[in-house]
Amino acid sequence: MLLEKDQKLLFIGDSVTDCDRAKPEGEGVFQALGNGYVSIVDAFLQSTYPELGIRVVNKGTSGNTVRDLHARWQEDVLDQNPDWLSIMIGINDVWRQFDSPFIKHQHVYIEEYEETLRKIVQESKPTVNQIVLMTPFYIEPNEEDLMREKMDQYGKVVEKIANEEDCLLINTQAAFNKVLKNLYPAAIAWDRVHPNATGHTVLAKAFLNRIGFNWAK
Amino acid sequence: MLLEKDQKLLFIGDSVTDCDRAKPEGEGVFQALGNGYVSIVDAFLQSTYPELGIRVVNKGTSGNTVRDLHARWQEDVLDQNPDWLSIMIGINDVWRQFDSPFIKHQHVYIEEYEETLRKIVQESKPTVNQIVLMTPFYIEPNEEDLMREKMDQYGKVVEKIANEEDCLLINTQAAFNKVLKNLYPAAIAWDRVHPNATGHTVLAKAFLNRIGFNWAK
Amino acid sequence: MLLEKDQKLLFIGDSVTDCDRAKPEGEGVFQALGNGYVSIVDAFLQSTYPELGIRVVNKGTSGNTVRDLHARWQEDVLDQNPDWLSIMIGINDVWRQFDSPFIKHQHVYIEEYEETLRKIVQESKPTVNQIVLMTPFYIEPNEEDLMREKMDQYGKVVEKIANEEDCLLINTQAAFNKVLKNLYPAAIAWDRVHPNATGHTVLAKAFLNRIGFNWAK
Amino acid sequence: MLLEKDQKLLFIGDSVTDCDRAKPEGEGVFQALGNGYVSIVDAFLQSTYPELGIRVVNKGTSGNTVRDLHARWQEDVLDQNPDWLSIMIGINDVWRQFDSPFIKHQHVYIEEYEETLRKIVQESKPTVNQIVLMTPFYIEPNEEDLMREKMDQYGKVVEKIANEEDCLLINTQAAFNKVLKNLYPAAIAWDRVHPNATGHTVLAKAFLNRIGFNWAK
Amino acid sequence: MLLEKDQKLLFIGDSVTDCDRAKPEGEGVFQALGNGYVSIVDAFLQSTYPELGIRVVNKGTSGNTVRDLHARWQEDVLDQNPDWLSIMIGINDVWRQFDSPFIKHQHVYIEEYEETLRKIVQESKPTVNQIVLMTPFYIEPNEEDLMREKMDQYGKVVEKIANEEDCLLINTQAAFNKVLKNLYPAAIAWDRVHPNATGHTVLAKAFLNRIGFNWAK
Amino acid sequence: MLLEKDQKLLFIGDSVTDCDRAKPEGEGVFQALGNGYVSIVDAFLQSTYPELGIRVVNKGTSGNTVRDLHARWQEDVLDQNPDWLSIMIGINDVWRQFDSPFIKHQHVYIEEYEETLRKIVQESKPTVNQIVLMTPFYIEPNEEDLMREKMDQYGKVVEKIANEEDCLLINTQAAFNKVLKNLYPAAIAWDRVHPNATGHTVLAKAFLNRIGFNWAK
Amino acid sequence: MLLEKDQKLLFIGDSVTDCDRAKPEGEGVFQALGNGYVSIVDAFLQSTYPELGIRVVNKGTSGNTVRDLHARWQEDVLDQNPDWLSIMIGINDVWRQFDSPFIKHQHVYIEEYEETLRKIVQESKPTVNQIVLMTPFYIEPNEEDLMREKMDQYGKVVEKIANEEDCLLINTQAAFNKVLKNLYPAAIAWDRVHPNATGHTVLAKAFLNRIGFNWAK
Amino acid sequence: MLLEKDQKLLFIGDSVTDCDRAKPEGEGVFQALGNGYVSIVDAFLQSTYPELGIRVVNKGTSGNTVRDLHARWQEDVLDQNPDWLSIMIGINDVWRQFDSPFIKHQHVYIEEYEETLRKIVQESKPTVNQIVLMTPFYIEPNEEDLMREKMDQYGKVVEKIANEEDCLLINTQAAFNKVLKNLYPAAIAWDRVHPNATGHTVLAKAFLNRIGFNWAK
Repeated sequence: MLLEKDQKLLFIGDSVTDCDRAKPEGEGVFQALGNGYVSIVDAFLQSTYPELGIRVVNKGTSGNTVRDLHARWQEDVLDQNPDWLSIMIGINDVWRQFDSPFIKHQHVYIEEYEETLRKIVQESKPTVNQIVLMTPFYIEPNEEDLMREKMDQYGKVVEKIANEEDCLLINTQAAFNKVLKNLYPAAIAWDRVHPNATGHTVLAKAFLNRIGFNWAK
Repeated sequence: MLLEKDQKLLFIGDSVTDCDRAKPEGEGVFQALGNGYVSIVDAFLQSTYPELGIRVVNKGTSGNTVRDLHARWQEDVLDQNPDWLSIMIGINDVWRQFDSPFIKHQHVYIEEYEETLRKIVQESKPTVNQIVLMTPFYIEPNEEDLMREKMDQYGKVVEKIANEEDCLLINTQAAFNKVLKNLYPAAIAWDRVHPNATGHTVLAKAFLNRIGFNWAK
Repeated sequence: MLLEKDQKLLFIGDSVTDCDRAKPEGEGVFQALGNGYVSIVDAFLQSTYPELGIRVVNKGTSGNTVRDLHARWQEDVLDQNPDWLSIMIGINDVWRQFDSPFIKHQHVYIEEYEETLRKIVQESKPTVNQIVLMTPFYIEPNEEDLMREKMDQYGKVVEKIANEEDCLLINTQAAFNKVLKNLYPAAIAWDRVHPNATGHTVLAKAFLNRIGFNWAK
Repeated sequence: MLLEKDQKLLFIGDSVTDCDRAKPEGEGVFQALGNGYVSIVDAFLQSTYPELGIRVVNKGTSGNTVRDLHARWQEDVLDQNPDWLSIMIGINDVWRQFDSPFIKHQHVYIEEYEETLRKIVQESKPTVNQIVLMTPFYIEPNEEDLMREKMDQYGKVVEKIANEEDCLLINTQAAFNKVLKNLYPAAIAWDRVHPNATGHTVLAKAFLNRIGFNWAK
Repeated sequence: MLLEKDQKLLFIGDSVTDCDRAKPEGEGVFQALGNGYVSIVDAFLQSTYPELGIRVVNKGTSGNTVRDLHARWQEDVLDQNPDWLSIMIGINDVWRQFDSPFIKHQHVYIEEYEETLRKIVQESKPTVNQIVLMTPFYIEPNEEDLMREKMDQYGKVVEKIANEEDCLLINTQAAFNKVLKNLYPAAIAWDRVHPNATGHTVLAKAFLNRIGFNWAK
Repeated sequence: MLLEKDQKLLFIGDSVTDCDRAKPEGEGVFQALGNGYVSIVDAFLQSTYPELGIRVVNKGTSGNTVRDLHARWQEDVLDQNPDWLSIMIGINDVWRQFDSPFIKHQHVYIEEYEETLRKIVQESKPTVNQIVLMTPFYIEPNEEDLMREKMDQYGKVVEKIANEEDCLLINTQAAFNKVLKNLYPAAIAWDRVHPNATGHTVLAKAFLNRIGFNWAK
Repeated sequence: MLLEKDQKLLFIGDSVTDCDRAKPEGEGVFQALGNGYVSIVDAFLQSTYPELGIRVVNKGTSGNTVRDLHARWQEDVLDQNPDWLSIMIGINDVWRQFDSPFIKHQHVYIEEYEETLRKIVQESKPTVNQIVLMTPFYIEPNEEDLMREKMDQYGKVVEKIANEEDCLLINTQAAFNKVLKNLYPAAIAWDRVHPNATGHTVLAKAFLNRIGFNWAK
Repeated sequence: MLLEKDQKLLFIGDSVTDCDRAKPEGEGVFQALGNGYVSIVDAFLQSTYPELGIRVVNKGTSGNTVRDLHARWQEDVLDQNPDWLSIMIGINDVWRQFDSPFIKHQHVYIEEYEETLRKIVQESKPTVNQIVLMTPFYIEPNEEDLMREKMDQYGKVVEKIANEEDCLLINTQAAFNKVLKNLYPAAIAWDRVHPNATGHTVLAKAFLNRIGFNWAK
């Protein structure tokens, strides 16, 4: 497995990451990591590799766009000195264009998205050992759906930056697509965005597999 | 994997199984399976084998002893017609002897425990394809601790019945013991009984491994 | 307009009709008609035709399928002696097949749907002056979406019964489709089922237009 | 219709406008426009003219008099850059003179009312395309009732300013009077001020008709 | 004063009498008499004539009409064995005709009102020393207002029965009219029905004066 | 009556005056004067002398001693410009010496009490037409009870200052003593300090009688 | 100490005994014995004589008089089979005569008190090893206070029955009197009835001393 | 007894001391001392030595380590001018090392613990008459348990400082060990840290015995 002894792994993102985590700290006793994929990842790491002492921190905040991440990057990421950093952002950047189409100052268009995401990745590289970029997703099987189409474009941006900046890439959309062959979106997420336990497990499995987690251990 | 298409898997037990599940039904949308090991098992089944359409039901009830299970067996198990049945019971049978030592009518001693557990297993065999027996546990590494010692005796009863009645056995105590080599009990369960996310993952992993879950799928 | 002086108009259906109406009565002061399309219809009737004294009653109940309507038909419809009766049902009949695919006893398949809907319509005709049938809908523009496809089939059943039994038909799906040409589903209903104020206005307008409401009055 | 593509329409006023809107923003998802006439106007605009993309904002605040509006005019109106602005104010200016007759500093007498209303209209004209002035109202059919009499005087001031400053005028009192011929006040507003759904629909219809809304579209 | 040592005085009526009294008993410690005119009457009796030991009971129930009083007369009045009985009923009998004009089964028209009120008075006379009849009222100064006009008719019925059956009559409408010469209705009751402290004091003073209360004692 | 047209009467004191009044203002609609003697005084003034337009303000604050009054005198009294001012303070000054005997910095001994009370009276005289001083009280009939004894001493101080500074004096202890001849303390105040409705009426009657209220009007 | 191994000690009484105990059982984990003297007695027994395994049960119910105890004697005492039984009752029997002097059916006068208390004691003797009778009390130092005087009479009845029926007597009034020499009632109980922690400790100490508790152990 | 007339005794510590005390003051009426050992100590002092007028203050704060005590020492201890000071700290210093092993900045290791505890003791000696040091404890009978072992080491530090700085020492671990011979931990504290009433009584008895409390008084 890629994670090493005593490393600190920080997750940041929007409501899919947040999941009612403890605030402001985002770690500690009593379900401080929330009830989403971050907690599942942590639980598998602790139960399978208790000897490594991996420290997981959740800094997700509901409603955030990449613009919001940038605004709190120094305090919530750089000051935390993580060894590993996982970023999943972009759903709200796209969603507001569809559920609030006339409130344009809430939209984060793709140019700003790319520029800002690249900036926070580059700012982090000098001090972080490894950065993981998870694409945003939309739990909609129809590729021609307007919002799915746009989400795929944002996903492509994440892929591009991951390649250029040498990050680990996790294609969450691909992971959901596989399940959507057999399950209708409503069985995974009531609004095609906020996953239920099954959906968060899709994300957690994708993350754990990407970092070489040994399920047989 | 041992579970087959369209099968129904019912879990029953005490608060470790219950975990705030929906009542009375114990299945459905909006986290109806609670937030413990049952939900984790279901989420891995649905996300990995969506084509099988496994139906998971949670009938755990906080505070139950085997005596309580027996009282609701017809309604909560037999009438549900499960294909698979998983039972984890015994923690309260033991615990009351230690936290309320003078209220003796709340204690379920080992003879009653064995007799009652055997009875509900035997009553279920004619209509259930496969029964899984999970031992009760106590997240205490010291084998000479009085409550751990007694819990181990109840675990032995479960093992004995599993052998005699041809059930799948899951030794949850052994699963926790492995983690306790590196983590102190307080990092898994505040009262050595109610697991946090890490502890529930220990249980879920043990269950999934026992039924031949394919992590690599 | 088709409604005449002193007539009583009763709406029945699921959560789209219910909208937090007063229970059990479903009429009276202080927003007793709920906050959905029923309230909008009533408000336009009262404000535009105050001289007619139309009495509107809301008997929607969240989560209902046609099976549930049938079970409460005597008490909630026939005993109320309405002059007009409007029925919109079927969304949950379909939805459970998609969000809880493995809990089959919650599914109401199309044969049962047709048979039951016809039965309650026929039982009502002797005492009700006019029956309005509103199709169920799914706020999804992609006609090949599995759930939209199925909802359209249920809508066809409604259309068929309306023709055979001489009811007024309101094609709510068609009404939403018109708006979906310019607005993405997320701007009308967060889960493509429960409309926001805009969505309920689509329904109310369709109803009022169908009964010959005179907007210019 | 008078409103054009991509225009922003801002409503401001007292509790009749506020109706539990989201604060501080007054727009967005989840019934952010409140549950009064503003929401009805918006819902009809979005459902009938989705292609126009009209953006509606609600800046009503319960208890406000024209003096309060003036105090927050820069922040809540001018800084918002609306294309259209609708003002309905004056009920509390009058009401406090009747329900708290001895607390005189809460009364806004007619000279101050006229002067202040004219000032905020004039301040807005350079940047707003169109201003709508809605008269205050009192849902009391007796024209000799003291409070109705005074409210009519304030209404006359609104009419005068609308003429002088070239605003669209909506005579809400006249709209209510028409309904009061057939309905007693208690059927529209429990305290003759706060309308129920029927009453808010009277206001919304008056507004929509004034801006040339095409009901037949 | 007319009340004598150790007598029990029972008040019955609608929400104006109820005022959040303790239920079911309507007497005892901790503001059990509610916060309306009944409590004021009691407080003046106890503080001025503590030596008499008058026992006051409040059996008002919000929303009641004379029809409701009749239904609970045996249990709530006759079984209580009061020496004095004060009845104020009729506001809801009239009000429902104006705020819910189309829900006719909630209306209690004047013939039923008269017949029922006479019946409960006659049933009580054999065992009650003295009956007080308080007219219903409407805090509206305009005698030609439709609801005031109707309330006056119901008041006349009360006056007629008081004369025929030899009860003490209290004309509450007259008492309010006197105050309304100087105060607008909104300063006494927000909805012209439910009095504030000033309004309840009008009622209490009328009652106390009618029974010969000695203010100078 | 001593109060004249358009005068403002301000009450200040501790929890007996406060009685859950609106804060910070202490006047206005919806029981803003609280539910104690201040509200009763106001209700009798408004219902009997509506033509005078007396404005009553309640500035009582629970737990206050004379030391606390002094600290907020400028803001809560002088800045309010009352015509009449009524002060009742001292219960907590004494009580803390008995219920918290060892927390001495909470005690206000009689020298400080006298000095401070005189100071706030003298500061108010230049701008206030008339000051009313109500003694503190203890609803305990035994004059040798230690706390009653001390309260009587504080009452004497009030009497002395009233004489010297030409204030109206109201001896509340004497008013209660009269009732205590027939009623046990528990029937007036559960803790011998906080009066029930009967007890507050004793205070209100004493106040109204002192200012020449005409009960026969 | 008088209590012996494995004995069950049941307390019954009014709110002073109840103190928010768990209901209906009155024993078990999580402060099930309430927060009054019963809990203190239990805590000292368990912490000092853990080897005895004394089982303490609290069956106090707020507001009870001896009449209420009698009504639930079979179920709440005899069916529980206690070895020891402690009764403290009478405060409400007396109090209602003083705080609700005119509601006479709530008063339990001394003859009924004596007769009923003797009856429940005699009914219990055949099956209970030892009965403890605790007198009712009133935390008022003045022996001539009317309620204290009456409480002392009820206390004498308890003393008499204890002598006749061979019960252990605890004079709680005497225990409080000793403390009242130095502390004013308000420092022990806000209403002279419901003790604070200090007051409950007075009761617990009196009980423990009476049963020969060895503080030095 | 060692405490003398009018002395002030201040307790400080973590959640075991805090027990829901009033904040910020930590003294006064209505259970301001919380519901743990501090309240028991106070209740025994007041009920047994009311003539001494001992003033007890509780400054415990949940979650505190010695590092937190140091940060608030000036304000919460020195500025309070206590005559006696009792410190019980260290449980969280140790616990975080076991329940959050990877969040190292929350751990207070033994060197920092000793240094800081000595510093606050030394800073207090010039103004405090007597300092009591209570060891931290862990309600676990197995001396080889890792957390018990570490807690014992911290307890040794307390003992050492008590000797060097001439403080009264209370070995709370020894007090619990005595009870643990007969009771299992679960009967005293659900998590082996937070005592129930029995456990707090163990602490209170140890404290009272150490200061020479005379139980026979």
